Amino acid sequence: MNSGAVLVVEDESLILLDIEHSLREAGFEVIAVYKGDNAIATFDRNPDRVAALLTDIRIGEGPTGWDVARHMRTVNPSLPVIYMSGDGAEDWPSLGVPNSLMITKPFVMPQIITGLANLLNSQAGLAAPG
Amino acid sequence: MNSGAVLVVEDESLILLDIEHSLREAGFEVIAVYKGDNAIATFDRNPDRVAALLTDIRIGEGPTGWDVARHMRTVNPSLPVIYMSGDGAEDWPSLGVPNSLMITKPFVMPQIITGLANLLNSQAGLAAPG
Amino acid sequence: MNSGAVLVVEDESLILLDIEHSLREAGFEVIAVYKGDNAIATFDRNPDRVAALLTDIRIGEGPTGWDVARHMRTVNPSLPVIYMSGDGAEDWPSLGVPNSLMITKPFVMPQIITGLANLLNSQAGLAAPG
Amino acid sequence: MNSGAVLVVEDESLILLDIEHSLREAGFEVIAVYKGDNAIATFDRNPDRVAALLTDIRIGEGPTGWDVARHMRTVNPSLPVIYMSGDGAEDWPSLGVPNSLMITKPFVMPQIITGLANLLNSQAGLAAPG
Amino acid sequence: MNSGAVLVVEDESLILLDIEHSLREAGFEVIAVYKGDNAIATFDRNPDRVAALLTDIRIGEGPTGWDVARHMRTVNPSLPVIYMSGDGAEDWPSLGVPNSLMITKPFVMPQIITGLANLLNSQAGLAAPG
Amino acid sequence: MNSGAVLVVEDESLILLDIEHSLREAGFEVIAVYKGDNAIATFDRNPDRVAALLTDIRIGEGPTGWDVARHMRTVNPSLPVIYMSGDGAEDWPSLGVPNSLMITKPFVMPQIITGLANLLNSQAGLAAPG
Repeated sequence: MNSGAVLVVEDESLILLDIEHSLREAGFEVIAVYKGDNAIATFDRNPDRVAALLTDIRIGEGPTGWDVARHMRTVNPSLPVIYMSGDGAEDWPSLGVPNSLMITKPFVMPQIITGLANLLNSQAGLAAPG
Repeated sequence: MNSGAVLVVEDESLILLDIEHSLREAGFEVIAVYKGDNAIATFDRNPDRVAALLTDIRIGEGPTGWDVARHMRTVNPSLPVIYMSGDGAEDWPSLGVPNSLMITKPFVMPQIITGLANLLNSQAGLAAPG
Repeated sequence: MNSGAVLVVEDESLILLDIEHSLREAGFEVIAVYKGDNAIATFDRNPDRVAALLTDIRIGEGPTGWDVARHMRTVNPSLPVIYMSGDGAEDWPSLGVPNSLMITKPFVMPQIITGLANLLNSQAGLAAPG
Repeated sequence: MNSGAVLVVEDESLILLDIEHSLREAGFEVIAVYKGDNAIATFDRNPDRVAALLTDIRIGEGPTGWDVARHMRTVNPSLPVIYMSGDGAEDWPSLGVPNSLMITKPFVMPQIITGLANLLNSQAGLAAPG
Repeated sequence: MNSGAVLVVEDESLILLDIEHSLREAGFEVIAVYKGDNAIATFDRNPDRVAALLTDIRIGEGPTGWDVARHMRTVNPSLPVIYMSGDGAEDWPSLGVPNSLMITKPFVMPQIITGLANLLNSQAGLAAPG
Repeated sequence: MNSGAVLVVEDESLILLDIEHSLREAGFEVIAVYKGDNAIATFDRNPDRVAALLTDIRIGEGPTGWDVARHMRTVNPSLPVIYMSGDGAEDWPSLGVPNSLMITKPFVMPQIITGLANLLNSQAGLAAPG
């Protein structure tokens, strides 16, 4: 059975590899991309394949993390969304999507893993309301 | 527009009238019944008509509050459910349904009104996940 | 002491008056406007005056409820936000702001009053973290 | 049946009377006192009589709201506690008790009523865990 | 010190061994059984030994996961309960117990570990209400 | 970037080393101390260095865990606080600080890791309200 992958969007390659490694160790499947355009294209090719989005805010040229999340939520309204950022956090109250998590850098990996687990568990509650 | 009614099930008529009056004053529409059988029959006639269930546990002969709630949840999985009881509360952890509220008697009406409002508001969140 | 007003934005005047009356009865101060432009202008004149936003989504010409909320959150990141809508609810997961409430029409006033109270109470928690 | 009273502690008599009136209108039973000493003495005479505590922080001479709440929690660990304050809020993270609500002045009465209802409802959940 | 074990009930042995291994690696003690009857018998022999229940819904012949959880909750009302299921999730709103978690297959182990940790932590809150 | 350390206070050295090891494995930085005095001194030297407090209640002579947490919260009102205790748990409702976690011994490490992650994630929400 395929539980889908965490789509990780981060333009600093060392951080991206670090996160990818930790998530795989924890049992998640991971799709790692460097730019917002790639993230959106990957998602659009097969939205069912993406179980959650973990994205930086400033990801070089092109769409920001805010844009990427908003696009994906139009297709999958219950997609778990976690934003990671150092200085972008102050825009979360106006540019973030509902039921998303804003984790400020620097963070430790348990924050990401626990955040993803909680969002996935509450999404299941949405699938079977009660 | 019709937002549906709160179906109140309570076999002590003074308490039932009291609750019905307070809920109507607060702006809710109310269907008041004395027995579990009537509650189930009323609901089955038109499930869309029932926005929430507020039920005592021991309601004379026939189905208990536990039975009534379970029946309605098979038809409407996101139905807000509040149980009221003096001594039945200890069975809630095994006989209650998920995402329900157990309010022990004696209570004050703000507990019921706030409880209903919270459950209706989170149900809306279920309707539009995110 | 002035606790600020609830800024209510709704283009159907009967609904607007109804909400305004109920909120005043409950003890809230209310500023009622019909259009998104007026809402934004009123807010910009004195942001400190607005304790919470309660807005319909489709409010005639001009800014939508999504736009109004987003604008106000750039100035006041902890502003309580409640959206009301019949069919706009499906856009909340992508166009709503974090920590907002989406209440689908038809609703009963206790949902609005309890929703506002909860958001104001958790905002106080933000003011004094712990 | 007696559901107990809300013990309200506030040294400004106009505010105290206002709160007492609103709470009674909402259906709560109220014991109103001006000073921390009286609050503690009243509670100690019959702890079962007090369903919840609503207290200002600075209440003249004698025990503060922080002291009053802490005393009552040693006797009733699940007592709902709401603090009201203008400038005392910044001490809540170090001097408040767990599972308490800090409501900053100025506030509107629905905040108090909804806060009390929520705490009473979750206390019932503590009485019948599950 | 003995913090009790997670009682895991799953009729597919590969999945059961997988879960048992991951939980042990995370620091949990595990009792693994294949059938509802065994689960109930094991629990009844020494209820204090079981810190949490993690159960599939369809577990071959005999009691379902719904039955197993309900039985255990009559003895230990605050027992953390997590259900795992592919297609049984739609019955959770009517057949599940309050304060339980429904995790739909396929899932990743962090969902189970985080779910168990959260339920155990909130159970402690029940033990010392406040 | 430095995300700060978890300050762990525990007077039984085997337990302290065990916790320190598990937290480091999970990705946390750790400062381990045996006594309340050391904890307070370490914190006072550089409060920014401490991202969270994890403390036993009875820690030999000197300040208790209750005292340590209260002191740190006067300097950092949003500091995540987790208490660990066997028999001290019954005092948490009167001596604990708001938004703290009380974990009763014996516990498993996922409870601590998940508890810390949740508190750190909600603290971020406090940093960027919305």
